[in-house]
Amino acid sequence: MREAYLDNSATTPVCRQAADKVMEMMLENYGNPSSLHTKGIEAQRELDRARSVLAGALKCRADELTFTSGATEANNLALLGGAYARRRRGNRVVISAVAHSSVMAAAAQLEKEGFEVVRIGTDAYGRIDPAEFAAAITPKTILTSMELVNNETGAIQPVSCMARAVKKVNAPALIHVDAVQAFGKIVVSPQKLGAHLLSVSAHKIRGPKGVGALYVQHGTHLLPRLYGGEQERKLRPGTEALPLIAGFGAAVQALLALSEGTAHATALRTLLLEKLGTMAGITINSPDDGLPYILNFSVPGIRSETMLHHLAQHGVYVSSGSACARGHKSHVLEAMKLDNDRIDSAIRVSFGHQNTEEDVLQLANALQTGLDTLTRRRER
Amino acid sequence: MREAYLDNSATTPVCRQAADKVMEMMLENYGNPSSLHTKGIEAQRELDRARSVLAGALKCRADELTFTSGATEANNLALLGGAYARRRRGNRVVISAVAHSSVMAAAAQLEKEGFEVVRIGTDAYGRIDPAEFAAAITPKTILTSMELVNNETGAIQPVSCMARAVKKVNAPALIHVDAVQAFGKIVVSPQKLGAHLLSVSAHKIRGPKGVGALYVQHGTHLLPRLYGGEQERKLRPGTEALPLIAGFGAAVQALLALSEGTAHATALRTLLLEKLGTMAGITINSPDDGLPYILNFSVPGIRSETMLHHLAQHGVYVSSGSACARGHKSHVLEAMKLDNDRIDSAIRVSFGHQNTEEDVLQLANALQTGLDTLTRRRER
Repeated sequence: MREAYLDNSATTPVCRQAADKVMEMMLENYGNPSSLHTKGIEAQRELDRARSVLAGALKCRADELTFTSGATEANNLALLGGAYARRRRGNRVVISAVAHSSVMAAAAQLEKEGFEVVRIGTDAYGRIDPAEFAAAITPKTILTSMELVNNETGAIQPVSCMARAVKKVNAPALIHVDAVQAFGKIVVSPQKLGAHLLSVSAHKIRGPKGVGALYVQHGTHLLPRLYGGEQERKLRPGTEALPLIAGFGAAVQALLALSEGTAHATALRTLLLEKLGTMAGITINSPDDGLPYILNFSVPGIRSETMLHHLAQHGVYVSSGSACARGHKSHVLEAMKLDNDRIDSAIRVSFGHQNTEEDVLQLANALQTGLDTLTRRRER
Repeated sequence: MREAYLDNSATTPVCRQAADKVMEMMLENYGNPSSLHTKGIEAQRELDRARSVLAGALKCRADELTFTSGATEANNLALLGGAYARRRRGNRVVISAVAHSSVMAAAAQLEKEGFEVVRIGTDAYGRIDPAEFAAAITPKTILTSMELVNNETGAIQPVSCMARAVKKVNAPALIHVDAVQAFGKIVVSPQKLGAHLLSVSAHKIRGPKGVGALYVQHGTHLLPRLYGGEQERKLRPGTEALPLIAGFGAAVQALLALSEGTAHATALRTLLLEKLGTMAGITINSPDDGLPYILNFSVPGIRSETMLHHLAQHGVYVSSGSACARGHKSHVLEAMKLDNDRIDSAIRVSFGHQNTEEDVLQLANALQTGLDTLTRRRER
């Protein structure tokens, strides 16, 4: 059966360039960058190269990037390492209520430890109001975090409001941006966004799973979460996962130009919206002005899991909410105050550069047969 | 130039079976195990399979294994997660003074936070005295950690003394074994060693860099170091690095039988010792009864870095001490109370299953020319 993988916000197939690079690093350039001999030096060179490539994409200095095992670790390092480093200067942490589970959970841990955590909700389309977010930032705020693109709805959040608000009240706050779903799709510049900390991940942009990076603005002090050797300027010790890191670099280099990718995703999204428009009762949960790569909608009366299963039987892979929250109600859709029927029947489609119109048509056909058969079955 | 890579304790070239598995998981079976659809289920199946393979090798339950980003993270989770979980029951932590830097640094962090850390030294060959280690374990000891095989000398440590001592004084201590250098080379059974926690790493056994695992005995409670999704029973959230994990499993399956590997390494070590015996003034720092895969020796009058550079020019790659301590004096050789000349001229050779007699002869020849030319140069 033909497969239409439309769950690219959960993870992506690794692109050939990145996969080949991983292979080369495993079999040939396999040295430990900490080794003093040629094999180590060659490995170190690849590490430097990948860091430069990523720095070029983020328009930052190479030494502002710390490679991690993924976005969860990058977000944890930002939130916990950031809050601990500033704990003498205040106690308040302000975050998006629709952040990724790794931000939500790290913040909950801070709360357990006595920090005051404020979570700012959204409108009915998952958009944070910049004025509301800014108003929560007080002179005692030491950390603030928002996702640039929401992983479930594709809402593009007003992250720049954080820097403005912090400046306005002269708060000692570190500003963190979770750019995991944005990177490779829209411009991500920590400097322009006024971020001290910014997280990215390889496996969302057709790089390998198991590697991400945290941008740490030059001069920003964080407490590490891991202790050991001197890798990554002691902020993140452990033998560097060089095949993955070099593969991450190759994936960044292989990315489509942003405008080209946007046009591609917009065409697929427009086609899907057109098809959805012909189906009875479907409601769109994503905002109009969101990232075109993500479209979240609800299929009245059919539980997400039921529809997902039906689609998978037709070779179509999408998700209900985030892959990281399997089986649970989406905290994002709940924060949007959608009614339970809509939450329970939500489907997230997320496009990748490798997707085609055919994929969308396969999805639309499978959705239609799902609507026909699953609803009918319910009526019996 | 022919290359003789004899630095396998720093890292290893990935074996073909593991590399192929990584490739397959990147390009074909690329789903997110948390996704509810077929792609996710197939990925989950590979995750389960790798876990079972590793559990078979360690003779433990599959659900006692938590995959991490490597040994540094596994050791940090064991030490910090273990000590925090037991902090109400005591304050004392007893560790090997010649542990890996990730154990040393995590313990130093605990000390900073008010824990009492006791470090037990070794004899002149890097061996810990079990009676001395046991005597340090008091009824207030909450954590104890020792490496099964020392990474610099190959000394096989008396890790079983920990369980006996803990039992004897009825201490509330978690027992951690760092088995990174032992796994795949000698029998590693957490149950037989009486360990609650045991760390292993893939890249030391010809698996990929960026993945390790922590054995956590069923019923043992640890505090997590990362917060996020529900992966790895919430002990280690984040999208699983499935290509690496599956590659780890493949590397375990591709391992030589222990006896075969031991015979191979012993033959290489014997040959090297024979050759070293013909060279003037070389002193052996490894114990006679150590792991045959590691041989540490000193070359009087020639600094390690100088000899390393010379050897690398002849295509031979070895190390001075641990790769994780580049440029620093080895804390292991210092704990052995070797004089500075021996420490400063130490060379560690570490064999892998892929090494041949020819590699050893190439090393011996290069060492001899090093002794001739570098000493002469010094004399001028």
